[in-house]
Amino acid sequence: MILALAGGVGGAKLADGLYRSLAPDALTIVVNTGDDFDLYGLRISPDADTVLYTLAGLANPETGWGIAGDTFATLDMLRRYGEDTWFMLGDRDFATHIQRTRWLREGKTPTEIASAFATLLGVRARLLPMCDAAVATRVNTPAGELAFQDYFVRRHHSDEVLGVRFEGIADAQVTQTLRDAIDQAETIVFCPSNPIVSIGPILAVAGVRDLIRQARAPRVAISPIVGGQALRGPADRMLAGLGDEVSAFGVARLYADVLDGMIIDSADASLAGRIRDELHLDVHVTDTVMRTQSDRLRLAQEALQFAQHRIRAGKSL
Amino acid sequence: MILALAGGVGGAKLADGLYRSLAPDALTIVVNTGDDFDLYGLRISPDADTVLYTLAGLANPETGWGIAGDTFATLDMLRRYGEDTWFMLGDRDFATHIQRTRWLREGKTPTEIASAFATLLGVRARLLPMCDAAVATRVNTPAGELAFQDYFVRRHHSDEVLGVRFEGIADAQVTQTLRDAIDQAETIVFCPSNPIVSIGPILAVAGVRDLIRQARAPRVAISPIVGGQALRGPADRMLAGLGDEVSAFGVARLYADVLDGMIIDSADASLAGRIRDELHLDVHVTDTVMRTQSDRLRLAQEALQFAQHRIRAGKSL
Repeated sequence: MILALAGGVGGAKLADGLYRSLAPDALTIVVNTGDDFDLYGLRISPDADTVLYTLAGLANPETGWGIAGDTFATLDMLRRYGEDTWFMLGDRDFATHIQRTRWLREGKTPTEIASAFATLLGVRARLLPMCDAAVATRVNTPAGELAFQDYFVRRHHSDEVLGVRFEGIADAQVTQTLRDAIDQAETIVFCPSNPIVSIGPILAVAGVRDLIRQARAPRVAISPIVGGQALRGPADRMLAGLGDEVSAFGVARLYADVLDGMIIDSADASLAGRIRDELHLDVHVTDTVMRTQSDRLRLAQEALQFAQHRIRAGKSL
Repeated sequence: MILALAGGVGGAKLADGLYRSLAPDALTIVVNTGDDFDLYGLRISPDADTVLYTLAGLANPETGWGIAGDTFATLDMLRRYGEDTWFMLGDRDFATHIQRTRWLREGKTPTEIASAFATLLGVRARLLPMCDAAVATRVNTPAGELAFQDYFVRRHHSDEVLGVRFEGIADAQVTQTLRDAIDQAETIVFCPSNPIVSIGPILAVAGVRDLIRQARAPRVAISPIVGGQALRGPADRMLAGLGDEVSAFGVARLYADVLDGMIIDSADASLAGRIRDELHLDVHVTDTVMRTQSDRLRLAQEALQFAQHRIRAGKSL
């Protein structure tokens, strides 16, 4: 059993590589739900949907999010009804949000709903939201505190980030399903997602960070920062705003207590020594930019082999 | 001020004829909401939407319901999610249901919502739901009691009708807005809608039948039964099932206490005598089948002139 921690598009790509590298039932993906929000009275879960659509082979290859070939008639009509249509929701995508909202109102948990969607779309990996409580990432900026999607989508993550908090996190508990998944994991992979607002919320759920710290499985992470820049999104500016080093080293340091090995890009090979010496982590250097399907597969397989190497080296097993 | 009572497609056609015959602000349309129901967690209001789309010039001319050129991607995806997609909801149409559901959850009344939709789509007629309470038409059949849309759409109104009741009608009160509209009406027109399940629920709302009975305005109705058959839908079989005469006379008798004049089709000219003699109503005989836009206009204008004739004849004014 392999456990992956993932956020949005970059995380979904590696999760897809893992899914296609393993027996279909062998993968569990824990997904950030701190980005979840309500729009038009519907519950939207962007990271969960990105992973779901990617693994189901439905994802839009141009954007990474949404459904390939989706149309926007519902959103057009909502615009006619005076709505601000700043968040692009396709017609097929709306079906997901309609269904999720209805299931939530019927009393289903996010864990049950993620599992139902996976089954219905033929995804045999297990998709787990990080918790069943509602957690909302909020970003403090010079313009004030913003709801995450306001910051990220509506304002194109152009505000300086002064701080981040996860509203509702105090009431969030690790689910039994996630606890079992961490216990039973043979390998834990941190996908190359934003360490602050994608992986950060997952680790902030009460119990998760401790369980991963104590896990028997080797734990490896892939840096989403390459050459001092985020491959996608605002991770670089967020790290800078929060006073962290904007590098693979900075990311590794955030994970150091819950990690055995760090995978960094060839462009960052010079950081390997510092990560080994200062953070006491193994380092694997490779090309980490996933442009093609075969990039996803190769990087996933290297991550698994790197973790296996930890097992062979005798890591606490 | 002209007040029209309307249900679905036939009613919407005449309402459209009235709208285009009058100053834009001079028309109020009371719409049946006994057909309303919840689907996929959304509130659907089929008759209100048919009238709204028709007056906004958006209605699908082929079907009479839905939006012209609408697509069905959301419904396709809901089918993938295992849903039974027996009720055709287009992508643009979904926007209406999403918006309505959200507004209801925010505490807006159906009256406020109908008004908002009209304004947003540039419809200057006033659209009024028959009441703000939730009323659900239920049809008793040999297969048991069915929710209206189960009977009407899912089972193609093929069941024999043994009875009809309006669940929740005891809690429904005429709104002040509708009371004022009846008070201020100069003419009241019963559109050629199903007398049992379209006009019936409107008249069953506490206060409405009495207010129309006492109205100073001349009140005329157009029969939806022509030559012993419903032009559309199950009105003929419903009348038969409930023991009413399946004819324009049968319809007129249902309205006799709230009506001054009845408009019947040329095909039914032989019924005029009985309607005059037995029900003491004025009768106007004309072609009532609306195939084209100009049919709608002509019939609307004839209905208004017929009512005016009542005024000139001195009806209780």
